[in-house]
Amino acid sequence: MTTVAAYAAPAPKAPLERTTIERRAVGEFDVLIDIKYAGICHSDIHQAQEGWGEAIFPMVPGHEIAGVVAEVGPGVTKYRVGDRVGVGCMVDSCRECDNCEAGLEQYCTGGGMIGTYNAVGKDGEPTYGGYSQKIVVDENYVVRIPDGLSLDVAAPLLCAGITLYSPLKHWGAGPGKKVAILGMGGLGHMGVKIAHALGAEVTVLSQSLRKKDDGLKLGADHYYATSDPKTFEELAGTFDLIVSTVSAPLDFNAYLGLLKTRGALVNVGAPEEPIALNLFSVIGGGKTLAGSMIGGIAETQEMLDFCAEHGFGAEIELIRADQINEAYERVVNSDVRYRFVIDTSTI
Amino acid sequence: MTTVAAYAAPAPKAPLERTTIERRAVGEFDVLIDIKYAGICHSDIHQAQEGWGEAIFPMVPGHEIAGVVAEVGPGVTKYRVGDRVGVGCMVDSCRECDNCEAGLEQYCTGGGMIGTYNAVGKDGEPTYGGYSQKIVVDENYVVRIPDGLSLDVAAPLLCAGITLYSPLKHWGAGPGKKVAILGMGGLGHMGVKIAHALGAEVTVLSQSLRKKDDGLKLGADHYYATSDPKTFEELAGTFDLIVSTVSAPLDFNAYLGLLKTRGALVNVGAPEEPIALNLFSVIGGGKTLAGSMIGGIAETQEMLDFCAEHGFGAEIELIRADQINEAYERVVNSDVRYRFVIDTSTI
Repeated sequence: MTTVAAYAAPAPKAPLERTTIERRAVGEFDVLIDIKYAGICHSDIHQAQEGWGEAIFPMVPGHEIAGVVAEVGPGVTKYRVGDRVGVGCMVDSCRECDNCEAGLEQYCTGGGMIGTYNAVGKDGEPTYGGYSQKIVVDENYVVRIPDGLSLDVAAPLLCAGITLYSPLKHWGAGPGKKVAILGMGGLGHMGVKIAHALGAEVTVLSQSLRKKDDGLKLGADHYYATSDPKTFEELAGTFDLIVSTVSAPLDFNAYLGLLKTRGALVNVGAPEEPIALNLFSVIGGGKTLAGSMIGGIAETQEMLDFCAEHGFGAEIELIRADQINEAYERVVNSDVRYRFVIDTSTI
Repeated sequence: MTTVAAYAAPAPKAPLERTTIERRAVGEFDVLIDIKYAGICHSDIHQAQEGWGEAIFPMVPGHEIAGVVAEVGPGVTKYRVGDRVGVGCMVDSCRECDNCEAGLEQYCTGGGMIGTYNAVGKDGEPTYGGYSQKIVVDENYVVRIPDGLSLDVAAPLLCAGITLYSPLKHWGAGPGKKVAILGMGGLGHMGVKIAHALGAEVTVLSQSLRKKDDGLKLGADHYYATSDPKTFEELAGTFDLIVSTVSAPLDFNAYLGLLKTRGALVNVGAPEEPIALNLFSVIGGGKTLAGSMIGGIAETQEMLDFCAEHGFGAEIELIRADQINEAYERVVNSDVRYRFVIDTSTI
C-alpha cells in the first residue's frame, strides 16, 4: 500500500479538497504510474454531483491520465520503468465475455467495465481516479503514449480523444465523406481534429459562431450556427455522418434532416431526459440514430498512435490543483478552450 | 387512353366502390400490364382514410401488383407480351439524382419517387394503383416475376416482401446472426420467411402466442410474447438485429435492451406520434436505431428471384373485389393470415 496525495470530493456536490488515498501494492501484472497530468472531463462533474445517480464518496475523479511508469510487477511484459503511459475510463473488465475478447471492453457484459473512479475494483475496494499523484493499474488497461505527444496534451485523448475516434472510424469518416461535429467543446474540438486527420470534409455545428476561428484552425472546412434556422435549410441532406457531443436537449428530427440517405447521427453526448423522436425521420431516408461510448483498449492505443502520427493532442488550459473547483464552474459554463488539465505536481 | 374497371375510394374514409379510370396510351418505353392480382397493404387503408395527411381522390389503392404484359411500347427492351411482371410502390422517379443512380429510387431526392397511387405522374395526371384491371408503367419500374412463383402469392412481395428483404440484407441478416422480427402480420410473416431463408436464427416477438404455430411453420426458431415481461428479461442482449414492423406505440428503450452490443433495431413500421427515446439506450452498447423504406427497383428484382429460388411467396387469403371493404376492416383488426390479395378478374 502506498499513501498518495489526491484531490477528492468528500460528498455529493461538495467542493473538491486535498486529501490522501491508499493505492494497492503493485501486484504481479500491475504498473505503478507517476501521474503527471489529468484532464477534467464534464463527466467528472456529473459524477461528483451525483447527476447520473448515486456515487461513491470520497470521490477522486479523473479518467484522462498521463504519466510515467515508476514500478512494474514481476509478470509485467508490456511496460518498463520510465515508459510514458496513459489510463482512460476503465481499469479492468471481466476479460472473458465476447466483448472483452473482441476488444470492446467498454461494453463488457461480464459485469461491466470497472471505471477508473466511482467504481469498485476486483479487490473490493473503491477505485480512485487521476486527480492524484500515483495510480496502480493492471498492464492490460494501460496504453502507451507515443514519443511525439507531450503528456499534457495527451491526457485528454484518453477520454475525449477515444470517444470521438471510435465512432468516426466505426461509421466510416474518411476521404469523400462529409462529417459534421455537433458541439465545439472538449469532445467536439477533438472530433474536428480527428475527422480532419481521417480525411473527411468537416463541418462544425455549434450554437453560435463564437468559436468559428478556432474551429477552422483545428481543421474544420465549414462552421455553422445551429441557432440560425437557415442552417437547417442550407444543410438539409448534406452529411454522411453527424457526431453529436451535446448533452443539452436538441430537436433530433431536425438534425436527422441534415443527413444524406442512409446517413448516421451518432451520439456520444446525451441529454438526461428522453428525446422525442419521429420514426419517420429515420424511415424516410433509411437513416440511423446510434450511440457510442468511449472505445476499447486496443482502439485507444490506435487512437494515440494516430494522433501522434498526425502531430496533435488536445487544446488545453493547464491548471494547478487548487484551481479545480473554479475549473468545474467554468466547464459548466462552457468557458474552456478546450480542456482543463491538472498539473498533478501541484496537488 | 384505355378505360379500365377499378375499385376506388371516392372520398376520404368512404367505402371503396366499383368505377372506371383512364389509363394513358402506351408510350415508347411503357408496358401495359393485365393485372391479375393486387395485394391489400395496411398503407392502402392509411391513405384512403387520410391518416397520413391530405390525399388525392378518387383513390385507386394498390401497390402490390402482379400481372401479365399485354402490350409494349416500341422502345421497350426488357419485356415482351406474355411476360409475368410486377409493380410495387413506385412507378417513376427523377432517374438523375445520386439515389436514383445508385438504385435507391425509393429515396429519390429529385422530387421524390412517384407513388403507384395517390401521387401525380410526370404527365401531370394522378396515379391509380392496382385495384384495377390494367396499368401502364415505364419498363424501368416494372420487375419480372420468376416462373417458380405463382402470381397471387407473388403480389404481396412487391411491398411486404421488399420492405423486409431490404433491411434484412442491408443490416447483415444471415448465418450466425440472431434476428428478431417484431410483429407477425403482413410484413412480419415475410420477415420470418426471408430471414430464415437468409440463414439467420429467427425469433418472432409478437403481442401474444396466438400465431406461434404459424410462425414456427414459416421458419421461426423461437416465438415469444411481448405481453409477457419475462420475455424482456430472458432475451436481454440477444439479438444482432431486430426489424420492427409495428405501427403501434412501443417502449423502444425496452426493445433496444434486447440487442447485443452494436446491434440494430430497424423500423419499417412506425407509430404516427413521436416516440420517447432515452439516448443512453443506444450509447451504452453502441447500438443503432434505424429506419428503412421499401427498396429500390434492382433490389426488388433481387428479392423476387431470391423468393423464387427458395420456393416461397406470401401467405394469402384470396378475395373478390366486392370483399375489399370487409377486408379493410379485418386488416384494421389484425384479422388476416397474412395478406389479402384481390383477384382482379372479379372487379
